[in-house]
Amino acid sequence: MKKVGIIMGSDSDLPVIQKAADTLASFGVPFEVHVYSAHRTPEEARSFALTARDQGFGVIIAAAGMAAHLAGALAANTTLPVIGIPCTSGSSDGMDALLSTVMMPPGIPVAAVATNGGVNAALLSMEILAVTDAELAEKLVKKRKDDADKVREKDRKISESFKNN
Amino acid sequence: MKKVGIIMGSDSDLPVIQKAADTLASFGVPFEVHVYSAHRTPEEARSFALTARDQGFGVIIAAAGMAAHLAGALAANTTLPVIGIPCTSGSSDGMDALLSTVMMPPGIPVAAVATNGGVNAALLSMEILAVTDAELAEKLVKKRKDDADKVREKDRKISESFKNN
Amino acid sequence: MKKVGIIMGSDSDLPVIQKAADTLASFGVPFEVHVYSAHRTPEEARSFALTARDQGFGVIIAAAGMAAHLAGALAANTTLPVIGIPCTSGSSDGMDALLSTVMMPPGIPVAAVATNGGVNAALLSMEILAVTDAELAEKLVKKRKDDADKVREKDRKISESFKNN
Amino acid sequence: MKKVGIIMGSDSDLPVIQKAADTLASFGVPFEVHVYSAHRTPEEARSFALTARDQGFGVIIAAAGMAAHLAGALAANTTLPVIGIPCTSGSSDGMDALLSTVMMPPGIPVAAVATNGGVNAALLSMEILAVTDAELAEKLVKKRKDDADKVREKDRKISESFKNN
Amino acid sequence: MKKVGIIMGSDSDLPVIQKAADTLASFGVPFEVHVYSAHRTPEEARSFALTARDQGFGVIIAAAGMAAHLAGALAANTTLPVIGIPCTSGSSDGMDALLSTVMMPPGIPVAAVATNGGVNAALLSMEILAVTDAELAEKLVKKRKDDADKVREKDRKISESFKNN
Amino acid sequence: MKKVGIIMGSDSDLPVIQKAADTLASFGVPFEVHVYSAHRTPEEARSFALTARDQGFGVIIAAAGMAAHLAGALAANTTLPVIGIPCTSGSSDGMDALLSTVMMPPGIPVAAVATNGGVNAALLSMEILAVTDAELAEKLVKKRKDDADKVREKDRKISESFKNN
Amino acid sequence: MKKVGIIMGSDSDLPVIQKAADTLASFGVPFEVHVYSAHRTPEEARSFALTARDQGFGVIIAAAGMAAHLAGALAANTTLPVIGIPCTSGSSDGMDALLSTVMMPPGIPVAAVATNGGVNAALLSMEILAVTDAELAEKLVKKRKDDADKVREKDRKISESFKNN
Amino acid sequence: MKKVGIIMGSDSDLPVIQKAADTLASFGVPFEVHVYSAHRTPEEARSFALTARDQGFGVIIAAAGMAAHLAGALAANTTLPVIGIPCTSGSSDGMDALLSTVMMPPGIPVAAVATNGGVNAALLSMEILAVTDAELAEKLVKKRKDDADKVREKDRKISESFKNN
Repeated sequence: MKKVGIIMGSDSDLPVIQKAADTLASFGVPFEVHVYSAHRTPEEARSFALTARDQGFGVIIAAAGMAAHLAGALAANTTLPVIGIPCTSGSSDGMDALLSTVMMPPGIPVAAVATNGGVNAALLSMEILAVTDAELAEKLVKKRKDDADKVREKDRKISESFKNN
Repeated sequence: MKKVGIIMGSDSDLPVIQKAADTLASFGVPFEVHVYSAHRTPEEARSFALTARDQGFGVIIAAAGMAAHLAGALAANTTLPVIGIPCTSGSSDGMDALLSTVMMPPGIPVAAVATNGGVNAALLSMEILAVTDAELAEKLVKKRKDDADKVREKDRKISESFKNN
Repeated sequence: MKKVGIIMGSDSDLPVIQKAADTLASFGVPFEVHVYSAHRTPEEARSFALTARDQGFGVIIAAAGMAAHLAGALAANTTLPVIGIPCTSGSSDGMDALLSTVMMPPGIPVAAVATNGGVNAALLSMEILAVTDAELAEKLVKKRKDDADKVREKDRKISESFKNN
Repeated sequence: MKKVGIIMGSDSDLPVIQKAADTLASFGVPFEVHVYSAHRTPEEARSFALTARDQGFGVIIAAAGMAAHLAGALAANTTLPVIGIPCTSGSSDGMDALLSTVMMPPGIPVAAVATNGGVNAALLSMEILAVTDAELAEKLVKKRKDDADKVREKDRKISESFKNN
Repeated sequence: MKKVGIIMGSDSDLPVIQKAADTLASFGVPFEVHVYSAHRTPEEARSFALTARDQGFGVIIAAAGMAAHLAGALAANTTLPVIGIPCTSGSSDGMDALLSTVMMPPGIPVAAVATNGGVNAALLSMEILAVTDAELAEKLVKKRKDDADKVREKDRKISESFKNN
Repeated sequence: MKKVGIIMGSDSDLPVIQKAADTLASFGVPFEVHVYSAHRTPEEARSFALTARDQGFGVIIAAAGMAAHLAGALAANTTLPVIGIPCTSGSSDGMDALLSTVMMPPGIPVAAVATNGGVNAALLSMEILAVTDAELAEKLVKKRKDDADKVREKDRKISESFKNN
Repeated sequence: MKKVGIIMGSDSDLPVIQKAADTLASFGVPFEVHVYSAHRTPEEARSFALTARDQGFGVIIAAAGMAAHLAGALAANTTLPVIGIPCTSGSSDGMDALLSTVMMPPGIPVAAVATNGGVNAALLSMEILAVTDAELAEKLVKKRKDDADKVREKDRKISESFKNN
Repeated sequence: MKKVGIIMGSDSDLPVIQKAADTLASFGVPFEVHVYSAHRTPEEARSFALTARDQGFGVIIAAAGMAAHLAGALAANTTLPVIGIPCTSGSSDGMDALLSTVMMPPGIPVAAVATNGGVNAALLSMEILAVTDAELAEKLVKKRKDDADKVREKDRKISESFKNN
């Protein structure tokens, strides 16, 4: 099975990455986590991207804040799908990272998810792997059902509580 | 080979869709184009998403403007990867569509590309299919090389022209 | 008397919903509260909207954050007036939810109120019911007078306090 | 039948108002159009709002640009539902008018629709009147079906045209 | 001497108003403070503006948040200069109030100061009164000198402290 | 009678300044127009501000685009009221100029009007002069009435035209 | 004398680059122009930056639009000062490029100038070279004086023309 | 060796300045720190800029918030490179300061770094000095290597920790 590469541009992005890693782990999908900075260790980032497919990776997740170049820098060096997570940081609400991640020029796509969207980055990476993996696809369907059941349960409790008011 | 489903929310998004379709066609990747509106024909949108995997689709591209719900509405009904293209429209610069497309809640991911990013949506859809399709992966690498060669050619001409100044 | 349907996309929107519910309760207007997610339980959201008029609902209030599709998803399946409350969430100041709620395409209107505007959503729903309900209209007028009296009382106290300075 | 009052803050908003008026006319719903400026003719605006219910109006639509106070100024003087249309103007993309219209304080709701959203303002006003008017409700359902049929027809043509490519 | 009228739209704006009042008091300029809401007590706001010049007011300061119509509503009913203070409120950073205050249509000017700018509103009101009041003008010049001296003192201390590092 | 100083930061702001000058001319209020750049001719700007009161100026209007420092640079060197007009320029919608003009720090106020708001800057300058000039105040009231009459006339024509439809 | 390297990410940025090149040429400062894309020819961009100092470059100017990574990508591979020009492109007003260029993380600075600011990028590059080049510094002072004289000439003409009105 | 002048517009910007000063101190580069306000002590700011080159300064760093004119005001009076740090302040996320700093008109460049970017301002100032100072250039390269090593060390620890999960 293809691995998911999870790259953060700075260890300040770890809380977001943790959610992505936990989600993948709960599905039993293999992954590796790395700290590669597009600006401070560009060689590592580049080298990872250039060899990712051969190393058995199927998808790459990249989380970064501010002028978030990481996803784009990886995407420039691989034709694997690269998922970008724009991270909030300091006084920024993440609009800088969102625009830096999503507004890629024609030729080098990045798949952006919501600001700090670690869970969805992981789910998207598995949806990609599940295109040709029926078993994983089935697990994703089951997760959707479980999530829906949780919403339904909340609906029951909350709608009931307002009746009692 | 899996097909790519290209859905536009309105025929006003056709110029963006055309670029996606042309890109897929140039790679020989099969695709279908539809006009399904999350708001005006929600049943069609839902029905398409619910059956897309069984109909042989591997990825879905959704283009919409304004309160661009289409990608999210499709993603809510499938676990196939859904790529969202936020479109500019009327007086809007597309920020409304970008936020409506990318800021999805945990559980239902959408892969957003740049505003009006038809070419990149198509390339991303093929990167997804190419995770387990070595031949397509090879074509994507070749396209990258061709694009790079074009940039190199422009560099040669332009850098030369400034020398003559 | 027609009921007001109050739908939240996530139980994290409960504080906003509570204000809407409290306002309606203070007027004695019947209402139901539900948790239906446009993305996680789209069938429930759709089913509610499709049958809302027959179930005795006169207006629907929908509160959601991020890419807030809930109001639009309900509006797509009913011709009852749908009031959308854009909610702040996490690091977002609610601009994502506001644009996702208000920028609806021609054909499917949503009536947006202010970010986290639970009270005004409830008041607007009652203004709608009061178009043909003179008694409720009278109550709304009285509420306006009471609100104005409170402002007048504050004016008296505060203007006085600055005279003493 | 209740009338719809359509108020524009300036005759520069006429193109947006025209769409609202045309939509109402196509449904045979009675309406009046006025130019009342919250700033230049505040007495007229106030007087209209204060007497609107007694004059047989059921809903008010207010279109204004820039610091768009018109909808709020009317809403401050009536408990009829007031629909605000934020208008673009000059170099503004309408974000000023949108925020000025939608961010109303608790107590005085305005129902905001999309920037320049004349058609949806008219549809929303009729959805409000149709809460207790089964015939009008039926017409709105029919309009939805017609709109959907148009989308379906476009889908047929466009999906076919891409097959021929 | 002309009085300054300080109006707040809600008592939640009191901290901003307090700074304005304190500044005026420190100059010995007479002022009155009121809570008049453009939306909840529009009659009081209107009545104040209509009679302000005759009541001996020379300038009006209006502070409000969200869809901050107060300054504009007052300006619509007087030709006295009206200074608007956009206030932050709740989750808003004040951009809504800023645009609602400053983007007035031709014919009805409002003089906007910075978000929560109570001190500058008071200073601006005194600059206006000082156009024909040499004594007040002198006091304003002295305040500028005092402010400058404070900055100079800080410069001495801070520049010194860094020399010691 | 005090003069109004109208300063533009660049001759590209001339169309905005023209509207201010025309408005003042129509009231017979004396004014001078200058091109002083806060950045390119800072000495001239400073010198003008430092001597403005002695030169007989009562108010200063400053129009500038981009990082619009002109109003603030003048205000730093005078205690006359300074009105800032943020100008659009090139690809900018004027938000840069608006924030650069209005967000002044405590101590040095600028009275900002709307983007490109030449007419309102002129009206505001005259409202300031009219605080102690009853004749000018009367002219301003008359202008308000004339403006209102024009709106009323438009109302008559437009409301009538929709009746004929 | 050190050369200035002028890099554009795409030949669509050529109009902006042309202004930078013309400005440098008018000062007789040597420069080279290249098209290196951070995403499409990352090797060329990286190689240029890594060797720029040894090749005799003293400053690098990088112009790019959208998710403008070029300046940051160059800065990551050199300790020469890198000036970033955010470019508008398509429907974008350049806010995406501005944030992508300026919001660099600690450790890897980029010197951002205004959107499309080709002239200022060139001037800044020469100010940098002039820190230790008295002759170039003198030329820059002269250019400032010439620019000021042009403003003064415009002031003369425009202030005169308004006197004649 | 040339000195770096570090100017803050207000002592509230001291935390940002401290980071710049610490960074310069760690490299042994001489610097001076001052509090000069573009608005409250414009003479001091102007005088500093006019004499900075003769006083032995090579670069100027200016930090300011809100309508951040300081960098531009200094740049208007010197041809030394001026680095602007936009500072957050109060309720502002720093977008006001960023636009006020970076959107300078042609002729007077400012080199903007990220919001609150004290470290990068210092590094950029040293990159500028290092253009003709091989020893300082070497130190900057070493700092880059040290920074990269820290990232590599974090990568080792974090990637390892996720393997153990």
